[in-house]
Amino acid sequence: MPAWEGVSVLGVGTTMFGKQPELTGPELVRQAVFEALDDAGVDSVDAVFAGTVFGAPGTIQRALQTCGIVEVPIITIENACASGTSAFHEACRAVDSGAFGNVLALGVETMTHHFGGAIHPEPTDREGRQGLAMPSIYAMSASRYQSVYGVTDEQLAMVSVKNHQHAVGNPRAQHQRVVTVDEVLESRLVADPLTILQCCSIADAAAAAVVGRTRDGLGVRVRSSALRSGALWDHRSPNVWGWDIVASTAQDAFTSAGVSCSDIDLFEVHDAFTIGEIVTLEALGLAPVGEGALLAESGHSALGGPQPVNPSGGLLSRGHPLGATGLAQVAEVVWQLRHDAGSRQVDGAVLGVVETMGGGTAGVDGNGCVVAVLEREDR
Amino acid sequence: MPAWEGVSVLGVGTTMFGKQPELTGPELVRQAVFEALDDAGVDSVDAVFAGTVFGAPGTIQRALQTCGIVEVPIITIENACASGTSAFHEACRAVDSGAFGNVLALGVETMTHHFGGAIHPEPTDREGRQGLAMPSIYAMSASRYQSVYGVTDEQLAMVSVKNHQHAVGNPRAQHQRVVTVDEVLESRLVADPLTILQCCSIADAAAAAVVGRTRDGLGVRVRSSALRSGALWDHRSPNVWGWDIVASTAQDAFTSAGVSCSDIDLFEVHDAFTIGEIVTLEALGLAPVGEGALLAESGHSALGGPQPVNPSGGLLSRGHPLGATGLAQVAEVVWQLRHDAGSRQVDGAVLGVVETMGGGTAGVDGNGCVVAVLEREDR
Repeated sequence: MPAWEGVSVLGVGTTMFGKQPELTGPELVRQAVFEALDDAGVDSVDAVFAGTVFGAPGTIQRALQTCGIVEVPIITIENACASGTSAFHEACRAVDSGAFGNVLALGVETMTHHFGGAIHPEPTDREGRQGLAMPSIYAMSASRYQSVYGVTDEQLAMVSVKNHQHAVGNPRAQHQRVVTVDEVLESRLVADPLTILQCCSIADAAAAAVVGRTRDGLGVRVRSSALRSGALWDHRSPNVWGWDIVASTAQDAFTSAGVSCSDIDLFEVHDAFTIGEIVTLEALGLAPVGEGALLAESGHSALGGPQPVNPSGGLLSRGHPLGATGLAQVAEVVWQLRHDAGSRQVDGAVLGVVETMGGGTAGVDGNGCVVAVLEREDR
Repeated sequence: MPAWEGVSVLGVGTTMFGKQPELTGPELVRQAVFEALDDAGVDSVDAVFAGTVFGAPGTIQRALQTCGIVEVPIITIENACASGTSAFHEACRAVDSGAFGNVLALGVETMTHHFGGAIHPEPTDREGRQGLAMPSIYAMSASRYQSVYGVTDEQLAMVSVKNHQHAVGNPRAQHQRVVTVDEVLESRLVADPLTILQCCSIADAAAAAVVGRTRDGLGVRVRSSALRSGALWDHRSPNVWGWDIVASTAQDAFTSAGVSCSDIDLFEVHDAFTIGEIVTLEALGLAPVGEGALLAESGHSALGGPQPVNPSGGLLSRGHPLGATGLAQVAEVVWQLRHDAGSRQVDGAVLGVVETMGGGTAGVDGNGCVVAVLEREDR
């Protein structure tokens, strides 16, 4: 069902990632969109799907008018952390259906104006009412996971060490510095066992992709994408939070693309917290349940290893400006598949996967997940 | 382009409209969705497009899980006041493309928890920084319009009188009472010349429609829908705020459906303020520019007249819970075309139009408009 025929990413663009309170949402959008249009070699698009979680009404339309994108349909999508990837998925579906020619997928978030620290849970949110902000939910997952599978604090920390190492090669990442296991473990405790270097930080950024019909010699093909809602976790599930929805969505995307996890050369996944990457990689099929922590420890998921994960630095080190994250992941995979990723290039990359999970703070009740399979076109 | 083939509304549902702070967003969603599913005679859908402006992340997903709608793609759309109609448009497009079978279009807003009075302009908004909340923008339009076309305060007020009269027949409307021209003009001044009975009030509500393939003898066909962004107003335009985008979007929808304005039996349009209905009806083609105020005065747009406008009471009297409004308009047109609208029935209605304009407070820079043409199936 979500297999696309002749759908490609023709161009991508992003801003810098980090705290940039001096830039407004529209200013960030302009930077990313102009880069993506220029990269695609087009000066207009036929429709826009834009992801943002806390963006004010009108932000996208206002920004795009100043980019010369007027009158075309603009759909602004809120799907929590998966907002940007949901916009990308909808853009692919729109091109696949023949409804539009070139479609802009866009994500933006200005967080430093909204949040001093962690995102506030909504007052109507069940977990929120119990004090369960996102770090707490992930921390409970991590505790259970450690208890069941005997994973150590050091093994959790190694995910952060790996992704910070990767970000050193990404000139647009928020945290471009090496950290050690000791530094990670000794950094401020946020929610036991997660220290602050195991939590993504708030950021301001935008990212964009131009999606269109496949043209010879240009761009990166989108083999498939899948979007599911609900079932982030079920109290009857033997798995920890997030596993279930990632597994079912990934299965959709892999089946549609006719690939298996072992075929994939690199992954950009939702490592909002270290435990998140571990659980996600198990759900994607890189390791059996309970063995996901070995992937960072062994170097399997590091640059230079057989299946690098988050070569951009991931949410932990590139930063996690909610709505922008999905398109930043797409941009990274596109650069990698074009063999244009500089010092963080995954050698000979042909197939890449983007995975984003959106949980809101209504985590238990579910929200959404998107998984997309992208392929270098000259394969 | 936006002409749909074999797309129908199979069922609709709404909550009551009004201040209902005791009900949460998910509770409102459940009421509307269960009624729509029941009305359509289906117990599941293949995808969901939901409109909300200020809904907290996760609201839609949480609500739908309790309706038994799980795992399917859910796309939450924010397109200001046109959020609900944008969701409806996207649902129609999804069915038309063959991507899904039955699709739920949904809108919800809980405003009484967010706003004590008028919606606050966003601090990054250009008009907002100058104090231009929505009533001020519409008031400036009204002043210019009155100055250019010699329209009186009484003529403005007659739009409110008409729509309040209509709402008396709508048991779900927020304001089910007759008002006189004098009462309208003597009510509290909000922004000169607009008094409070010429301004829609905040409300809490949800509304939903099940969109699917046309089935003999059931439902109402969607002949076309169109969505445009931008160009709400241009300082070079001879028209007042809102006219330009409504006119171009309506032209798209009418051309695609192969109908003209004079063919339409009833309209549900965006009368957020009295001047809004006047300008919108001119943009739709019911009257030449400058003569829209005559439609209410002459009874042309009243129930019993040749082309009733807002038989539900419209935004002015049914209420305007932002994200829910578009689907409430769709529900009203569907009930009318089924000849199931009780004492407010438009006799023999065959063709109906829904129009919603989304302005955010970034009005001048534009946002979006949706126009849809619906038809009784046994025509």
